[in-house]
Amino acid sequence: MTLAIRHVRVTPIAFRDPPLLNAAGIHEPWALRSIIEIETACGRVGINETYGDLPMLDALAKAAPALQGLSPWDLNTMEDRVAALVSPAKTGSEFLGEQISLAPGTHVSKNVAKVISAFEVAMLDLQGQLAGAPIVDLLGGAARDAVPFSAYLFFKHAEHIDKTRTEYLPDPWGEGITPEQMVAQARRMIDQYGFKSIKLKAGALPPEQEVAAMLALAQAFPGAPLRIDPNANWTVATSLKVVEQLRGVLEYYEDPAPGLDGMAAVARESDVPLATNMVVTDYKEFADNVRLGCPVRIVLSDHHYWGGLRTTQQLACLCQTFDMGLSMHSNSHLGISLTAMTHLAASVPHLAYACDTHYPWQDDEVVQGGRLKFEDGSLRVPRTPGLGVQIDPEALARLHDNYQHCGIRNRDDLGQMRKYDPTFTGKQPRY
Amino acid sequence: MTLAIRHVRVTPIAFRDPPLLNAAGIHEPWALRSIIEIETACGRVGINETYGDLPMLDALAKAAPALQGLSPWDLNTMEDRVAALVSPAKTGSEFLGEQISLAPGTHVSKNVAKVISAFEVAMLDLQGQLAGAPIVDLLGGAARDAVPFSAYLFFKHAEHIDKTRTEYLPDPWGEGITPEQMVAQARRMIDQYGFKSIKLKAGALPPEQEVAAMLALAQAFPGAPLRIDPNANWTVATSLKVVEQLRGVLEYYEDPAPGLDGMAAVARESDVPLATNMVVTDYKEFADNVRLGCPVRIVLSDHHYWGGLRTTQQLACLCQTFDMGLSMHSNSHLGISLTAMTHLAASVPHLAYACDTHYPWQDDEVVQGGRLKFEDGSLRVPRTPGLGVQIDPEALARLHDNYQHCGIRNRDDLGQMRKYDPTFTGKQPRY
Repeated sequence: MTLAIRHVRVTPIAFRDPPLLNAAGIHEPWALRSIIEIETACGRVGINETYGDLPMLDALAKAAPALQGLSPWDLNTMEDRVAALVSPAKTGSEFLGEQISLAPGTHVSKNVAKVISAFEVAMLDLQGQLAGAPIVDLLGGAARDAVPFSAYLFFKHAEHIDKTRTEYLPDPWGEGITPEQMVAQARRMIDQYGFKSIKLKAGALPPEQEVAAMLALAQAFPGAPLRIDPNANWTVATSLKVVEQLRGVLEYYEDPAPGLDGMAAVARESDVPLATNMVVTDYKEFADNVRLGCPVRIVLSDHHYWGGLRTTQQLACLCQTFDMGLSMHSNSHLGISLTAMTHLAASVPHLAYACDTHYPWQDDEVVQGGRLKFEDGSLRVPRTPGLGVQIDPEALARLHDNYQHCGIRNRDDLGQMRKYDPTFTGKQPRY
Repeated sequence: MTLAIRHVRVTPIAFRDPPLLNAAGIHEPWALRSIIEIETACGRVGINETYGDLPMLDALAKAAPALQGLSPWDLNTMEDRVAALVSPAKTGSEFLGEQISLAPGTHVSKNVAKVISAFEVAMLDLQGQLAGAPIVDLLGGAARDAVPFSAYLFFKHAEHIDKTRTEYLPDPWGEGITPEQMVAQARRMIDQYGFKSIKLKAGALPPEQEVAAMLALAQAFPGAPLRIDPNANWTVATSLKVVEQLRGVLEYYEDPAPGLDGMAAVARESDVPLATNMVVTDYKEFADNVRLGCPVRIVLSDHHYWGGLRTTQQLACLCQTFDMGLSMHSNSHLGISLTAMTHLAASVPHLAYACDTHYPWQDDEVVQGGRLKFEDGSLRVPRTPGLGVQIDPEALARLHDNYQHCGIRNRDDLGQMRKYDPTFTGKQPRY
């Protein structure tokens, strides 16, 4: 059967990443991803983008034989085979060292869901090509024509500490530490992309500095929905102090304190809705949150580690069933991931918040036509069959060459931070 | 655009139904359904089968304009438009009178979900034709090649009381009242279809007679999974007495006592898993059950009133998340419904029980090729594009003629029972 999948290509890539601060440390000069190409016997190619760290590349390599001979429609069989080939329960300590978890995307415990997602989107791309329909149509059709994203602000240094290497040029965003600098960062991003909502990645500086930045943003952008995300780097007491200082400012409060218990403790004393991408990251944790009476009110979904676009649609149904909201989480990524996120978000009526994206922090692209264009803070949903973006082979070769030479194989924000401050332990909650 | 839907045809039909006893009364001599045909501008037709009572026909007529100009892929838009056109909150007392609810299918409160499902399957049929893929593939591919169904036994009379009308011939099943007759009924059904599981519709005779029938079945078919469903016609005390008498016999215990509270009371005293199609019939009730600690352990899904095939897949995800099982409920139906159930069940790995079907109780068919063939108790999943069955126009005309002449416009098991026993009140729980 000519539809049968006969080849899977996984190409790790690296692209420049600015020195963005977070609870775990600081971004390294290169971010890793991998590009998936799934080819059928008749020569059609479905594509996708996912994580690019070594454990993920290892899992993808182990799972690739699962696709041999499969029809692009056979997602259930693909999922079964991947689960059989990829071991889900490793702690992954050999890879992660003392790395602190910002996002489940870096956890090998999520390998099965991550690999399933990596293959699913590429298979949906093939399905769409076969059906003559964009992926959003395979997911139930567009509930909206364009998907709004948020301005994702980071505290940051002006340049990387590794500046002895000539390719580590200062990025155009400059330093982002003071409230004035953060307002300027937001202004620049909003002027360029048109975003209406603002998210501040926090947990990096002393909380009073981060509160001051939020209050300055609230004043500079009146009416804009604002969010803060310290990645669980605050105690319950600090979380409650901060939310009091930000009274009337927050649309939602993302992962202030560690663990579901920490979040529940914050929820008991505050009426600002709590959001998470750290304590509700799979169905088991979803059920745990429900059994606790839903201290977390909004799940930040991410198809890359929840198991794909269809799984995220099911997550939307779970959230609706328990009167919870749904928003969308992001890691550093390029246009293939962004396009998949756009198809997905367009297909989920319940996803009513502007989605997170790191996209403005990257300047490179792997898709034909270069960087995707936001209109008024939103991306239009592609109407061409499948995913609606194609790989630029020259760009892919260049980004893969980056990977070959960058020397980074696993994300290590903690190790990178120790270059700036050898006493940095990354112990959480820090404040 | 030639894909756009330009016409919706709804044809009510009636087919013979035997005098089957249940908690609400007894089946009338005719069962109603309706056949949906959705035609695109380019002349493609997608089909489906759903309820045929007057309130449903009214809702379908109100909602049909929702489809005008829509692409078969635009399920989300269809759902929005149907919800806007069909009022969901009517009590429906003007239609239902004192009719007792056996299944949410007869509730106008479910009109939005029922109409969405009616249109969704026909649109999926069109999608599959466009994509060159069977519906099961649009739903993620077949997790199994064939779907097992159960032998669905009923206590019954040998013939209808309305035998003055010449078309009400005795059915070939004979009387089903004594344990011996019920074993013979099961034997006949299993010989003919190959079913491995057995379900007994109960709540019709005094419980000790129904227990005797179950014990006779357990003895006659050792190892066959057995279920009993009195449609909430027993008190909690009776439910507990019966489950004790059936110790070691039941695969699951379907809707013994009324209401979620009644089910919870039974669950507290018994470890046989409780199943329902009466108290978990939508997402709100699903959440209620979870908040009570899941007294109901198995949901009997039914795409006809849950909102379609995709919604039932989401229900499967909800069940998995809360460690609940999933089985499938049925009403009197013909081959289009049965085929949709087969595509759906094949696409849901979590659906591990043999599905209910009334199909053996009907002898008529509306699809080309006539009655569908079971192999070893299972139906093979069609591999042709779309639903994989087509309407036989002559059969449709004949079944519609039945509808025109049968004089029945709403299912009324209670009124029918009063012809046998004028003192019958239908008050529940009866025992």
